[in-house]
Amino acid sequence: MAIAIIVGRDLQETKDYHWFTNAWKKELLDFDSTLDIRIWPDVGDVNEIVAAFVWLPPVGVFKNFPQLKLIASLAAGVDHVINDLDLPKHVPIVRVTDPYMATDIIQYVQVCVLHYVKRMEVWEEKQKEKIWFKKPPFNYSDKTIGIMGLGFLGEKAARALQHVGLKVVGWRQTQKKIPDLKSYSGKEEFLTFLAQTDILVCMLPLTKETRNILNKNTFAQLPKDAYIINLGRGEHLVEEDLLQALSSGRLSGACLDVFRQEPLPPEHPFWSQPKIRVTPHIASVTNPHTAAPQIYENYCNLITGKKLLNTVDVEKGY
Amino acid sequence: MAIAIIVGRDLQETKDYHWFTNAWKKELLDFDSTLDIRIWPDVGDVNEIVAAFVWLPPVGVFKNFPQLKLIASLAAGVDHVINDLDLPKHVPIVRVTDPYMATDIIQYVQVCVLHYVKRMEVWEEKQKEKIWFKKPPFNYSDKTIGIMGLGFLGEKAARALQHVGLKVVGWRQTQKKIPDLKSYSGKEEFLTFLAQTDILVCMLPLTKETRNILNKNTFAQLPKDAYIINLGRGEHLVEEDLLQALSSGRLSGACLDVFRQEPLPPEHPFWSQPKIRVTPHIASVTNPHTAAPQIYENYCNLITGKKLLNTVDVEKGY
Repeated sequence: MAIAIIVGRDLQETKDYHWFTNAWKKELLDFDSTLDIRIWPDVGDVNEIVAAFVWLPPVGVFKNFPQLKLIASLAAGVDHVINDLDLPKHVPIVRVTDPYMATDIIQYVQVCVLHYVKRMEVWEEKQKEKIWFKKPPFNYSDKTIGIMGLGFLGEKAARALQHVGLKVVGWRQTQKKIPDLKSYSGKEEFLTFLAQTDILVCMLPLTKETRNILNKNTFAQLPKDAYIINLGRGEHLVEEDLLQALSSGRLSGACLDVFRQEPLPPEHPFWSQPKIRVTPHIASVTNPHTAAPQIYENYCNLITGKKLLNTVDVEKGY
Repeated sequence: MAIAIIVGRDLQETKDYHWFTNAWKKELLDFDSTLDIRIWPDVGDVNEIVAAFVWLPPVGVFKNFPQLKLIASLAAGVDHVINDLDLPKHVPIVRVTDPYMATDIIQYVQVCVLHYVKRMEVWEEKQKEKIWFKKPPFNYSDKTIGIMGLGFLGEKAARALQHVGLKVVGWRQTQKKIPDLKSYSGKEEFLTFLAQTDILVCMLPLTKETRNILNKNTFAQLPKDAYIINLGRGEHLVEEDLLQALSSGRLSGACLDVFRQEPLPPEHPFWSQPKIRVTPHIASVTNPHTAAPQIYENYCNLITGKKLLNTVDVEKGY
């Protein structure tokens, strides 16, 4: 009975790969030093693998393991798992809800929004020129922030923005009343939401409905000079549409933490577009130390036949 | 009976000067178009001036006005007024407490702290090199923020930082119990406060006790690699000591919004020290539109013999 840690695709060619896999292995062995943990692709006898702990697993990898009984995403998102068409239907999927992740994400939204609101980019530019440029507007406190995706994290982010005196509205796919937060839902209210959103923050899960939702039609509905922050998934954004909207002056800038291809390749135009801030998917990074307890608990639940925690609805996509 | 708007020293030589004086004049005339408002130095008969609305007034200017009955600082701080040794002792001084100022200041503290905590500078550097640099630590959420000056604004800033999951302690000159906020006071607890402060935020008023408080002795008590944020006054900081502590590696960086000389002259070393972020005194800028009502109200109180609002204790310095 063994566990396979499967970290695939792009990450495998980077230095992050060994840091990430070793950190998880160490944390799990700290709970139980007798665990048999194998790092893909060196997994030995595939019939011994009962659990796969995965991040960006290679498509089709799961069918190698006939005895697989649990797939655990080593992150909050599971789109990287359920996109696999060969996913074994009978194997439950669980995900991480790291308690520190909410804090991480809220801080990221807050710093990106406030950087724009406090016009920090203007002062940075002028510092390079050694120019004391003190001209109004000194801030954009009158701008409205629109959060797409009002789940647990989206609502927390909205509250933090409200706490520093900013106007926030929200949009989600299904209706839900949220106290003291003007929120819209569904396709029918999407345009109303966009029309008042100066700073659009995408915190949606990636599903077939939300894929490519940040596209030219969406941008066209925003007020001129709107700003985009994407910490959902790279696949939410139609990259050419963003580049076009920035170069035409339709949008004023964007802050992106997620990309269709990660690591973002060196030749990608996002790196050198001055209106785009690129961060390397760090808005929230699952911390093996704080997230390992629940992954280990789910593994124990599997072995002892108890109910699994944080299971994923593959149909809904999260 | 006339009002003199007196904006002096460095500002008079900048483009800000006309924007600032005209904005105040316009806002006040909106209340009462019959007001006789004169802009220093074109004030006509000095015997007609009964009120001076001032920002950085030239030292000694007040003794020109024998009929002066009110000095109103067009800002929250009054150090720029009461530093004048020739200040007429019998003329009351009032200051602005712009309701929007608190929001401005909290946002500034928040964005500066989070920029450091979320390591945004690292990702910015790597974007320039087109390098996907994803290495822990991904944030400095374990750092403690120490706020010097726990008045109305300091406490608000502390709350906003706590709201995004950060550890905050505070220090003030006089003791005051603040719920859920570990706070220190006086000289005897200053070192205890500094020893645990990774990010030092100066929000003190400028008084004879606090002048030069950000000096090499203070820096030496902070944990190594501490970060400094100053939005108090330029005179809180001993500039050479900061430059020295940054070049020796004792401190990791600083974010400064206020300076001994404003505008900061082009030849000043702060502009080009890469570990210093310079902002042109924009953390909070009194907005003539939102602050004019209370300045006008105080002028009316003066004329009608009512009690003045927001009067300043010259001895205490705020």
